[in-house]
Formats: sequence, C-alpha cells, structure tokens
Amino acid sequence: MTVPESLQNRSQTHQYVLKIFRVLIADLVQQFNGGHPGGAMDMAAIGIALFKYVMKYSPSNPDYFNRDRFVLSNGHTCLFQYAFQHLVGYSHMTMEQLKTYHSSELESYCPGHPENEFPGIEVTTGALGQGISNSVGLAIASKNLSATYNRPGFEVSSGHIFCMVGDACLQEGVSLEAISLAGHLGLNNLTVIYDNNQITCDGSVDLTNTENIKKKFEACNWQVLEVQDGSNDVDGIIEALETAKKSEGNPTLIIAYTQIGIDTSVEGQAVAHGAAFGQSEVDNLHTLYGFDPETKFFVPETVYQFFADVVPRGKQLEKQWTELVHDYSLQYPELALEFENRRLGKLPPNWQSFIPNSFPTTPTPSRKSSGLVFNEVAKNVNNFIVGTADLSPSVNLIWKGKTDFQNPRVKTSCGINGDYSGRYIHYGVREHAMAAISNGIAAYSPKTFIPVTSSFFMFYLYAAPAVRYGALSQLQVIHVATHDSIGIGEDGPTHHPIALASLYRSMPNMLYIRPCDSTEVAGAWEHAIEADNTPTIISLSRHNLEQYPQYSRKDKVRLGAYKFIENAGAVINIISTGSEMQFAVEASQVLAQKGIIANVISFPCQRLFEKQPLEYKRSILNRGKVPSVVVEAYAVNGWERYATAGINMSTFGKSLPGKMAYEYFGFNSERIAAKIEKYYEDWKQDESLRFEFQDLN
Amino acid sequence: MTVPESLQNRSQTHQYVLKIFRVLIADLVQQFNGGHPGGAMDMAAIGIALFKYVMKYSPSNPDYFNRDRFVLSNGHTCLFQYAFQHLVGYSHMTMEQLKTYHSSELESYCPGHPENEFPGIEVTTGALGQGISNSVGLAIASKNLSATYNRPGFEVSSGHIFCMVGDACLQEGVSLEAISLAGHLGLNNLTVIYDNNQITCDGSVDLTNTENIKKKFEACNWQVLEVQDGSNDVDGIIEALETAKKSEGNPTLIIAYTQIGIDTSVEGQAVAHGAAFGQSEVDNLHTLYGFDPETKFFVPETVYQFFADVVPRGKQLEKQWTELVHDYSLQYPELALEFENRRLGKLPPNWQSFIPNSFPTTPTPSRKSSGLVFNEVAKNVNNFIVGTADLSPSVNLIWKGKTDFQNPRVKTSCGINGDYSGRYIHYGVREHAMAAISNGIAAYSPKTFIPVTSSFFMFYLYAAPAVRYGALSQLQVIHVATHDSIGIGEDGPTHHPIALASLYRSMPNMLYIRPCDSTEVAGAWEHAIEADNTPTIISLSRHNLEQYPQYSRKDKVRLGAYKFIENAGAVINIISTGSEMQFAVEASQVLAQKGIIANVISFPCQRLFEKQPLEYKRSILNRGKVPSVVVEAYAVNGWERYATAGINMSTFGKSLPGKMAYEYFGFNSERIAAKIEKYYEDWKQDESLRFEFQDLN
Repeated sequence: MTVPESLQNRSQTHQYVLKIFRVLIADLVQQFNGGHPGGAMDMAAIGIALFKYVMKYSPSNPDYFNRDRFVLSNGHTCLFQYAFQHLVGYSHMTMEQLKTYHSSELESYCPGHPENEFPGIEVTTGALGQGISNSVGLAIASKNLSATYNRPGFEVSSGHIFCMVGDACLQEGVSLEAISLAGHLGLNNLTVIYDNNQITCDGSVDLTNTENIKKKFEACNWQVLEVQDGSNDVDGIIEALETAKKSEGNPTLIIAYTQIGIDTSVEGQAVAHGAAFGQSEVDNLHTLYGFDPETKFFVPETVYQFFADVVPRGKQLEKQWTELVHDYSLQYPELALEFENRRLGKLPPNWQSFIPNSFPTTPTPSRKSSGLVFNEVAKNVNNFIVGTADLSPSVNLIWKGKTDFQNPRVKTSCGINGDYSGRYIHYGVREHAMAAISNGIAAYSPKTFIPVTSSFFMFYLYAAPAVRYGALSQLQVIHVATHDSIGIGEDGPTHHPIALASLYRSMPNMLYIRPCDSTEVAGAWEHAIEADNTPTIISLSRHNLEQYPQYSRKDKVRLGAYKFIENAGAVINIISTGSEMQFAVEASQVLAQKGIIANVISFPCQRLFEKQPLEYKRSILNRGKVPSVVVEAYAVNGWERYATAGINMSTFGKSLPGKMAYEYFGFNSERIAAKIEKYYEDWKQDESLRFEFQDLN
Repeated sequence: MTVPESLQNRSQTHQYVLKIFRVLIADLVQQFNGGHPGGAMDMAAIGIALFKYVMKYSPSNPDYFNRDRFVLSNGHTCLFQYAFQHLVGYSHMTMEQLKTYHSSELESYCPGHPENEFPGIEVTTGALGQGISNSVGLAIASKNLSATYNRPGFEVSSGHIFCMVGDACLQEGVSLEAISLAGHLGLNNLTVIYDNNQITCDGSVDLTNTENIKKKFEACNWQVLEVQDGSNDVDGIIEALETAKKSEGNPTLIIAYTQIGIDTSVEGQAVAHGAAFGQSEVDNLHTLYGFDPETKFFVPETVYQFFADVVPRGKQLEKQWTELVHDYSLQYPELALEFENRRLGKLPPNWQSFIPNSFPTTPTPSRKSSGLVFNEVAKNVNNFIVGTADLSPSVNLIWKGKTDFQNPRVKTSCGINGDYSGRYIHYGVREHAMAAISNGIAAYSPKTFIPVTSSFFMFYLYAAPAVRYGALSQLQVIHVATHDSIGIGEDGPTHHPIALASLYRSMPNMLYIRPCDSTEVAGAWEHAIEADNTPTIISLSRHNLEQYPQYSRKDKVRLGAYKFIENAGAVINIISTGSEMQFAVEASQVLAQKGIIANVISFPCQRLFEKQPLEYKRSILNRGKVPSVVVEAYAVNGWERYATAGINMSTFGKSLPGKMAYEYFGFNSERIAAKIEKYYEDWKQDESLRFEFQDLN
C-alpha cells in the first residue's frame, strides 16, 4: 500500500490510518520484546472513532473540566491509549515517550498499565474490572453535577463517559456488580465499548464463558448495540457511539466484534494477547501493508494531518464552555460560585462548624458518634456523596432530608425515591463495586466530590481491591467501616474481622483510623476530610463504647497515638484502640490498685504515628525503658514495632453476644490486668523480654 | 386454627406445619430479642419440599457420602436450617439446642450463621455470595466423581446440590462470577432456589436492583422455573425441584416469590429482615394462627410425625447405596478401591514419589519449579483438581495429557475440549469465584478432593474473602500465587503486591509460604499437601531465581525458618524469603569481605515458625544478642517480631523491567550490604537500636 496523496477518500483514509496504527503498536511491543499488542491493534478503529470524531475533549488541556472521559478498563492494552494520545497531539506524549513503553526509562508516561498520575489518564487500570466500575462512578459524578448545576440554556456539565472493556472485564464480579447498578440507575451518559475478540490468556473465551452477553446486559437495563466489523468499520462505530450518546434512559453497551492481532499469522489466537510477535512476524505485517520493514515507528505526516483538527477543536470546546460558564455566572451568581468552588475542589470554609464540639458522655456506639459528627456536614456540603452497601439502618449515615441519587423513573415499592441531584446512594449488596465506583466519583475531579462508602468492616475485604486502587491512585475516598470487632457478637466468626486491620495498616498511602470514643471519631473525620490524596477507613463499633471526655483528644488523632492517661512514675504502657480502650483503661485502674502504675496510650492510627518525629514517638512509647502491652481484638501483626507484648486474637471469632465474645477470648479488665501484672513481674527479671515479643493471649 | 386430628389432607397438613414452623422461628428470635426471622419464615414451604420430600440425605448420618447437599447461601436465615434439622430428626439438634440461638451458651450448634464444623452444615456461610459459589464447587465435585467412578448400572455417585439464596446473594460479584461459570459448565446437578422476597436491609430491592433475573440467568445458560406462591405452595415447589433434578444440561434457578415476615404486621418490609418482631407482634402471630401466645416453642407431636419418615428413609438410602458400592467392588475392584480411598480422603501412598529429588541448578523461576514439583503429582493423583483464573500460560500447572473439566457439549473455538472427568478447570477471569468454588470442592468430603487454584499473587486480593473462608472453615485448598513481587516488572504497581503478605500472614489458620528456590518449593508443596485442615498459599516468582542446593532444605520449610547460611562468629542475621533471597546471600558475601560475618536465615513461613518450640526460635534468631535485618520487597508489618531492622517496601511499586524495579527500590546487593554495615555500626553504639525497629529503606 502506498501513501495516498491526499486523505480525501474517507474509507481509504481510515484504512490507511488503521494500518499505520497497527504497525506502530507491533513495532513498540517488539522493541523490548514485551507487552500486549493484540488488543491494542484490534481496537484501532474504535480509537479513531472516539479520539478523532466523537469525544469532546482537549488534548492541550487534559483537565478541561467538562470533557468527556475515557477509561481503558482493559488496561493491558494501554499502548492503544498512549498511541492515540500521541497522534491527536497530547504534548507530553512524544514519539520518544511512546518508545519508553517497557523500557528502563524512569521518567516514562507509558507504564505497563495506565496510571492516573499522567495527563489524560482518568483512572489507573490494570486489575480487570476496576476501570468499568470506575466509569460508573464517573458517570454518577457527571450526572450529579448536571442535575445540581445545569439550568435551562446552561448545560454547564455534560460530560459523557466512554469505557473500553475486553472479554475479561465482563467476567470479573466487580464489573458485574457495577453493570447491574448502572442499568438500575439509568446512567445514559455511560457508553461501554466491548472489544469482543473472544480471546483471553487461556485461549478462546468459550473455554470458560458461553453466555449471551447481549441478552445479559439487556436483562440489566442496558441498551445494546452491535458493530459487526469492529476492527475496521470506523463509520459503523461512530454511528453506534452517536446513538449511545442520545440514549434516553439507559447506559449503552456497544459490542464490537474484532480480531485480536489482526492481519498477523496469530490473528484470533491467545498468543496475540500478551507477547511480542517476533521480529519476522512484525516485518511480515509491514510488508503486508506495503510498508518498509526497516522503517520502525513510522507515522507519516498525512496521518498527523488526519488528526490535526483535534487540538483546535478541543480549544474551541473549552472556549465555548468558558463563555457559557461566564454567562451562567451572570444569571445564577450563587450557583455559579458554588459550581466554581466545586470545580476547584474547595469545601465551604465553614465545613468544620457543622461538627459538634461536645458529645453525650453516656456510652455510645462509635458508629452512632460518626453520624453525630458527619451527618450535618454531609447535609450542608455538596461535595459529599454518601453510599452504603445495603446497610443504611446500621451505619448511621442518613442525614435529615437526604435525597437518594436515583433514577427518577424508578418508583420503588418501599416509596423511597430520588433523582440525580441526590447524594445518597443505595449500592446494594455490592461492596466491591461500591468502592470502585467511589474511586470513579473521586477521580472525576479532585475534591469536587469526596465519596463516602459504608459497610461492616469485614466486608471491606470484599472491597479490598478497589480500596487499594484508591490508595494507589491517591483518591480521597472515606470508608466508614462499622461493626469492627468481635464485639459485634452473635453474627459470629464470619463477621468478625481479625486480619483485616493488618492489611490496611500495611497498605501504602492508606489511613486506617480506629477511634475509641466520640471525640476521637470527630478527630478521625476531620483528618479524613482534610487528607487530600489519601483514602481513609474510619473503623467503628456496633456496640456502646465508654466516653472519655477527660482523656480523649480530637486534635491528637492526627498524631496517630498519644498519651490517653499519663501517670507520674508509670512503669508500663497499655496501648489500645477503638472498642478495646475500655479494657485498657479499666485494667490500668486495677493495676494501680496493685501498685503498678501504667500509662494508657490511645493509638488510633499507626500510619499517622509513623509520620511523627522520632522524639515524639519516643516520648510516647519510651521503648527499652518500659514495656508496652497492646490490647486489641485483632491479629497482633505489626504491633510488635510499638509494643513488647500483646493481648490479641490468634484465632477466628465465635458466635456469642458481644460481651460474651470478649469474655470468651479473654477481653476482661480483671484478667487483662492479671496478665499484665504477671508480664510486668517477668519483664523485670527476664532480660529476654526486652527483645522478644510476648503473646499474652 | 386447631390441631387437625390427623394429617391426611396434604394441603391442610402443609399449612399447619408452615404455621407451626413460622411461629417457632418468631419465638426463637424473640427470646433473646435478636436474629433474622423474616426470611426463615418466608422460606418454610421451600424447607418442607426439600427436607421432607425431595432431598436424598440421612439425618442419622449427616456425612452419608452420596447425600444430596444443601447450602444456605443466605446464611443469616440459619434458623431455617436449624429448625428443619430439629424437625426431621438430626439427633444433635434438640429443642434445647435450638433455643441456644443468640444465647450465651458456649456449646451451641446454632451460631448466628451456619458453620461447617457442625453436623449437616456443608459449608460456612454468612458473608453473602460465598454459599452459592461453594455450591458450584460442590456440584463440580459431585459431577467429577460421577464421571470418574460411575459405570453402567452403578451410579455410585449421584449427589445433587441444592442451594438457597436471597436477593443479596444475587447482587454480590462472586455469585455472578460463579453463576456465569456454572451455566457454562452445564452443571445440571445444581439447583438454586431464590427466596425472592424483594427485601434487603435498606428497603425494597428496587432501590438498587431492577434487573430481570430470569432473563439474566437464561442468558447465562440456566434453566429458570418459577413458583408464584413460594411462601405456601409446597407442591408447586416440589414439582419445580423435581423438574430441576431432571435437567438435561443446565443448572436450574427456581424463583420462589415469597413474603418476608409473612403474616406479621411487617410482612413485606425491611424491618422483618434482621430484628425480633417484638413480643406483642409474636403474640399476634400465635393468635392469628390459633395458637396460644403463652405456649412458646410449640411443636406438636403431629408435626414430628409428619417428618418421621425422613430418618428411616435416609437409613434406607444409605443401605441401598452401601449394597450398590459392594456390588460395584465385585465388578470393578480397582476402581472401587480408588473410590473408597477417595471417600476416606486417602492419597495414594506413593504420592511423594512423583516429586523430583533434585532440580536444575541454573536460575529458575519458582513458578516453573512449582510445575516441576507438582505436575506429576497432579497427573497421577486423582484427588487433585487444578484450576486457573485465565493464567494457564503463566502459572505452569498444566501436566502432560491433562483433561479439562468441561461441559462435553461445549466445542471451543480454540479446540481444547474436555469432559466432567477432567481435573483442570478454566475458571476465567473470576478469581473470587475460583477460590469460593474451590472451597466448595474441598468441602464435598475431606481430602476426597484437594483443589488447587492459581493466579498472580496480586489477584488473591480479589479472592481474599473466599481464601479467608477456607481458613475459617478449615478447608484444605492450595493456592498457587505466582508473580509475587516487584520483580514481575513492567506490569507495574497495579500488579505489584505490597501489603498482601501482611494480610495472609496475620490470618488465622492460613499458611503463606514463600519459598526461595526449587528445593524450598518442593518443601512448600509437600507441607501444603499434608496440611489437612488448612489452606496454603504458595507464593512464587515470575522471574529466574538463583538455586541454592548447598543451602536450601526441603525438610526445613515446615519449620517456617532455618539457618540458610550459618557462619561461625556471625554478628548479624540477614532474614529473607522468596525472590529476595539472592540479595540476602550476596549481601552477606559483600559484608564478609568487610569483616562483618552474617548468618542468612531463610524464613518461608511465619506461621509455621510460630509453631516451633521457644528454644528453636531462639536458636535461629538470637534476639537481643545479634541484630537481624529482614530483606523483603513487601510492607514490613509483622517482621518486627523477628527482625530489628528491615529493607522493605513503604510505597507502591513502579512499572519498570523487573531488575530495574528492584534496583529502583534499593534492592541491590551492594547497597543492601552498605545499609546493613551502617546499621550494624550504629547498632553497636546506640543502645536504643536494640529496642527500636529501624526501617533501612
């Protein structure tokens, strides 16, 4: 094939660009002999339709607020996006940058999966199913902004979400949860394009999946469109995308039938998925297409020309939108100011004024304290969008007069309805999707939304991959994890978290905060709201907790740990968190009667404590001089850094009423005091105890 | 309603039993003012159909091998199962026992969710979605046994699996994965009964789910049947169940439309789900049904009589089956012997002979070592059923001549077919379901199957809730987790596990074993195969690892840690695991040149080390006398118990080629040696370092 003199014949042009694109992908994967070429190649026509024709975005300002958003849920095909970024004129994505894919270059915009720290990447993808679930969140965010701020003639928010998925994303549970919810919510601003190449790592998809995808999505209230020649039919794809954008009340799935590794000898085979083709095969592809095998990474000027309208069109879009927002601000000054603050990620300056300064001193479940702290904030600050995985009656996050984020066409049988301006989401029993969707909401624009999720702490193991993605992607999401210990009682070991705190305490960029009373709950919330680029889990009790207004300090939660009770001449520290604080305080009193003076350390967050200066840490722990015993009904792992001994859980829980469960596992102030006393006596005599952690369970 | 003199009118009888049952549930939940009554009551007719009429089982021998198996996936309705166990004559489930539900009684068979340690409970349920996924595993196990051992006229294996689910189980991602796979596999020995009461905790299901369940299941290759009056129509349910049992090639979903909290004033409302009704409401129900409100826990003799045929029928079933197996052993002695050994959970005595005694000494990825160790075992020992979440080319678990466990009617486009006697499962990209299904396979009967799962280590975060359930339920499942460090390279931070080891090391009854070379891989496999009641994760590298035949010891893996390199006069320990061992060994050599003599400790499993006697532990670590530095590319949390300093990961990873990724994060033998040298010099002078863990990252 020779380079056409002009690119005026639309179909020929598309074919030419497709071939240049596919060869470029093959060359890029071949250079370091690694990567995922097959899918990126078979999706080329979809890319032309999206990036050249359909999407409203601005390569010269990837953060243009009212852009359509693109998510590559099959993130291993990232070269697809990188190469299109290059072609349409994202300035950071030079050809030199493109060539860093799979290289040793430290300053690369081309990691093995898309990462949201880089321009034009909305969310980090790679672990399958996350991207499509994030897309549902992006669509919710866009929909909510539109419903809140648009006025007749002023469509200041209109972003559509486009998401690419492969066969695998449609197998992952998190996707299936999100798909079901998106259909229920009628998110017509969401279009998912399914690269249906019927190949995964093991072979053909029918090794493991023979379901009728079209029928399945239709059963989930989606509009389903099909493009038979998804590898080549650019115009067919455009038509489907335009139809999708006009959907009245449903999200759209476009099934594009494609051939993985198209036009190579491994077309349609699993080996085209995740490895370089080999140089001779890449040469053959050059030759088949009429290109010189010696010329690698070849993008002729005509192809750049083909995409040359994208940047100016984007600038024009921005200009029009800026003007629209300006006119809007004249017509609706207050609304426009709030919209601007939201865009800038500003909370109202008075947000803290909605948090009470004092709390009931009678025993209170910390899940209830959390509601007292946060619900007035949620009510008054539109940045918060709050949801629960079907535990509304348990997690105490309903504020007075809350409106559900709901498809207004749905009339529920229980009579609780809503609309798209609502900020309370019934996620259903879909913990994983809840967290992934919340990541998407947070990713819409920093702090424009601060999504809040809620469930029992144990079920944050279901949500863990998405919670981790939030930490990895530096997204501010607040997870309200109630029922956080064996104190929840009768539900039994299936519901008793033991090892989960270890996971979240060791996860980078994650805050796991376990406050011990209402005052600390307020400190936890304040810090979580201020923590711009970090997700937080606030870990709360189901049952009543003693209140310690004389000891607990809201402002010290952010230090991670502090002296809760400081006694002159203390010879031992008792460390505790959350619901077990009561045992620590009481045990210290019992010990005092026996002449053993203890300090009590409240330790709501290990990660925050680690950030403190060495002097502060030493002032709290006094390691080497006095022993410290941690009292917490979780696995001990990780406490060995701070404590010299522990009273913790080394087994799963047991179905008993909460107090009995504590009792059964030795969480009883008298017994704890006795164990600590014995340990302290041993510690004075046996030097090895200075170096060897003791389990006192 | 008065007690009928006889129970000869079938319909009247059913109505009477239903009422007695519902009132019993209401009484049981009321006594301690807690529990889940609504669903248990609305499912009563389903229970009569199953436990009185349809299921083949034997209450007097709950472990009768060829029984039909029942799984209560909506485990919070456990009183449903406990009460039917009582009525049909399970000897352990006395009325006194039934009354221990939600009590402080330590010796209770009635925990808040069903636990498989108790008679007649096949799998532990409670976290939603696990039970239905386990059921798919039970159906696979039954199907595989049937295909392997049945012969014409000798249907020695014929167990059908019945599973109850509620609305919530059909929202969880793990269920949706398992449902899709079950349909693909054509598991016609699986019947799921959907208690469609349209209520969850938040309110009506249409708050969050308006999909067409029937159409969705049909799209997934299920037969769908409906029973309109699921709360009352016992005969309609029986008919549907019998139709399901005759299904030719599909699993069956029976949608039973029911009323939660039936016949109470909260019928059809969310409050009927998870709380006692209140005494006056319970009294009203008594009165409505014509029973005395003063008489609690009332089961008249006529109702016991109604169920009285169940025990003798079960005994008869057992007898017939025992005779069948006897005749089978005459006709097919070898097969019958193997079948007997499988039933008894015995491996062939020579299973260890299939493990090589020596390995290539050239650098080998430990995922490859794993294949060398295990694949001949898998090939020769039918107890193993092996699967992968779409990573067959990566995890090296394919043995020569393996047959897929596959629906024989499916002809795949890649030409890899199979049948139900196959023992290799393509789970698809469904990690969570893979682990949950494997739990079900393991639960079929102890060690009759030892299921093996495989994926990248990172994706065991997706699978974590099910892996945890395996540990909680003491099920022997072996998880082969490859690509276990930043050494996997270019896939980047999305694929680099950092915090995951902390989770599994702190999880009760879980073995996380990270071997450093082929010899240790063999030790890990041997221990995992012998660990009857414990799941194991074997954690493996993608990349080449140095082999240490001179140091590594297969038999010492089970000690958890041992002296890998012992040097006279060692002044410091270097602890390492898995792929980072190479850095530890090389660093010790560099340090030796500088006159700092180190021991190297291989530490493949913390949990196994904890089980060793104190003297052994002290002999390895020598704490307080010499410092120990752990070198591992994970979060450090938990190592503080063993090491005094660490070179670990405190951030997420980075997309770079594997060696470069190690280099970037400081995993370089020279730099590690330099850090250890500096630390050792500090340690000698600064006494605080004996007490304060140092991060040397």
